[in-house]
Amino acid sequence: MRIIPESELIINSDGSAFHLHIRPEQLAEKIVMMGDPDRVSMTARFFDNIECDISSREFHTVTGSYKGKRITALSHGIGTDNIDIVLTELDALANIDFNTRMVKEQFRQLTMVRVGTSGGMQPHCPVGSYVVSEKSIGFDGLIHYYANSQSIREEEFEEAFQRHVHWSPFHCSPYVVSADEELVERIGHDMIRGVTISAIGFYGPQGRHVRLPLADPELNAKIESFRFGEHCITNYEMESSAVAGLGKLMGHKAMTVCAIIANRVALESNANYKGSIEELIKIVLDRI
Amino acid sequence: MRIIPESELIINSDGSAFHLHIRPEQLAEKIVMMGDPDRVSMTARFFDNIECDISSREFHTVTGSYKGKRITALSHGIGTDNIDIVLTELDALANIDFNTRMVKEQFRQLTMVRVGTSGGMQPHCPVGSYVVSEKSIGFDGLIHYYANSQSIREEEFEEAFQRHVHWSPFHCSPYVVSADEELVERIGHDMIRGVTISAIGFYGPQGRHVRLPLADPELNAKIESFRFGEHCITNYEMESSAVAGLGKLMGHKAMTVCAIIANRVALESNANYKGSIEELIKIVLDRI
Repeated sequence: MRIIPESELIINSDGSAFHLHIRPEQLAEKIVMMGDPDRVSMTARFFDNIECDISSREFHTVTGSYKGKRITALSHGIGTDNIDIVLTELDALANIDFNTRMVKEQFRQLTMVRVGTSGGMQPHCPVGSYVVSEKSIGFDGLIHYYANSQSIREEEFEEAFQRHVHWSPFHCSPYVVSADEELVERIGHDMIRGVTISAIGFYGPQGRHVRLPLADPELNAKIESFRFGEHCITNYEMESSAVAGLGKLMGHKAMTVCAIIANRVALESNANYKGSIEELIKIVLDRI
Repeated sequence: MRIIPESELIINSDGSAFHLHIRPEQLAEKIVMMGDPDRVSMTARFFDNIECDISSREFHTVTGSYKGKRITALSHGIGTDNIDIVLTELDALANIDFNTRMVKEQFRQLTMVRVGTSGGMQPHCPVGSYVVSEKSIGFDGLIHYYANSQSIREEEFEEAFQRHVHWSPFHCSPYVVSADEELVERIGHDMIRGVTISAIGFYGPQGRHVRLPLADPELNAKIESFRFGEHCITNYEMESSAVAGLGKLMGHKAMTVCAIIANRVALESNANYKGSIEELIKIVLDRI
């Protein structure tokens, strides 16, 4: 059995994971994740009791119980580079023996739901609606650093997308991955199912022209008009591809659901949809 | 003159930038940046007085004065996706009129020094040494979303690097950019000058094998042996490429300097080097 060296997996002197600063026994198998550390405090207010409350950089973790279920609420910060850190350390906390530095014999599967905010790309995803990322398209390239990505990538979808938008050869190969099907059905059965792009920034990479001009000002229009079978691209955020992709490579159940807080197409919000991030977190806590 | 729409540049109701939550008059022209919000508090303890202290997510900003110089200390969180947010909003605070939403006629140049921690790749960069990123290689691809990246990219260096490491066609085109020369000389004249890779994650993307195997386990060895003229790759972090690249595209003076906190080659730290991140911040405050 391979002993994972200190340089690959740094464990703090108190026995906690390097960035998250939590110890293996402080992690629940059901995990609700969000970008903003303050939203973890908001989530923890729904808990019946609190086991631990730990903050380090943008990583804020609270484990507690909600209606009898043990749940960890945790903030991951912004971007897929942070998801690389968070998912690797969560998986290590669950599946690596921190004393022997070896992978445990018994695999422990985690259930991870990211609750985010997102910009809508289609008229049927107005402000205030909830969109479950049934599929995600990663513009981030994270998955290509890990072996066996072809086992979880949907190459026909990828190729059709690249052809339609005339994908720049300077960008990484956009990867298409599906979230866990059972989890999507359980958490999102009454929500809009969508295809979510994870962008590598908030401004240029999502087609926002502030002062610097964009390399391809037409990219968003081409994204909006893309169809693959019954699928169209519904929304933009910055983490779902890595949550679904790394989660699947590791063998966990993972998905993202977002409250739409802006829409680039329908400029008016639809009064029939009034969902908030707080209400969405409550739904996820009930269904996870 | 173009009026920048609300969907491209969101301004909060108190007149502050969307993510940073600071207003134009709260930004100094000299900016010291770091990843960890707590390090901003540490930096602010060196200030003679404090004008403002604002936190939002991982973005913690303090403007104050240090030996008569007005300086903004600010945390950017982890990764180049965050640098996209931070540099765009800093540039907007300096160069866009938040009332008219138009680019100001008079360009205001900012000086931005990122002070980071980093893993060393060469024996001459032991733990505790300071490495200035004279050049950076972006594995993140951010710059390719903006127009005119070819005007700041060093294509011969890029091509030599791709050939040497057999760069995967799934990855984005790695971009090579130089930090501001005068700034590198002023801040780092007595430090090691290096070439820094900005990775898109901490684990797989920096060659750390925890539980998931890597797509190319030999990539780090190839990176270590790469030479381009007198240049070799000295260290890994996660932001310098975007700081240098976006900074240069915007016309600002920008650079990164890191304290080496781990070394993948020389396993022992060298007792002759004892530099800490706190001492490095002090040096940067003195020289900026």
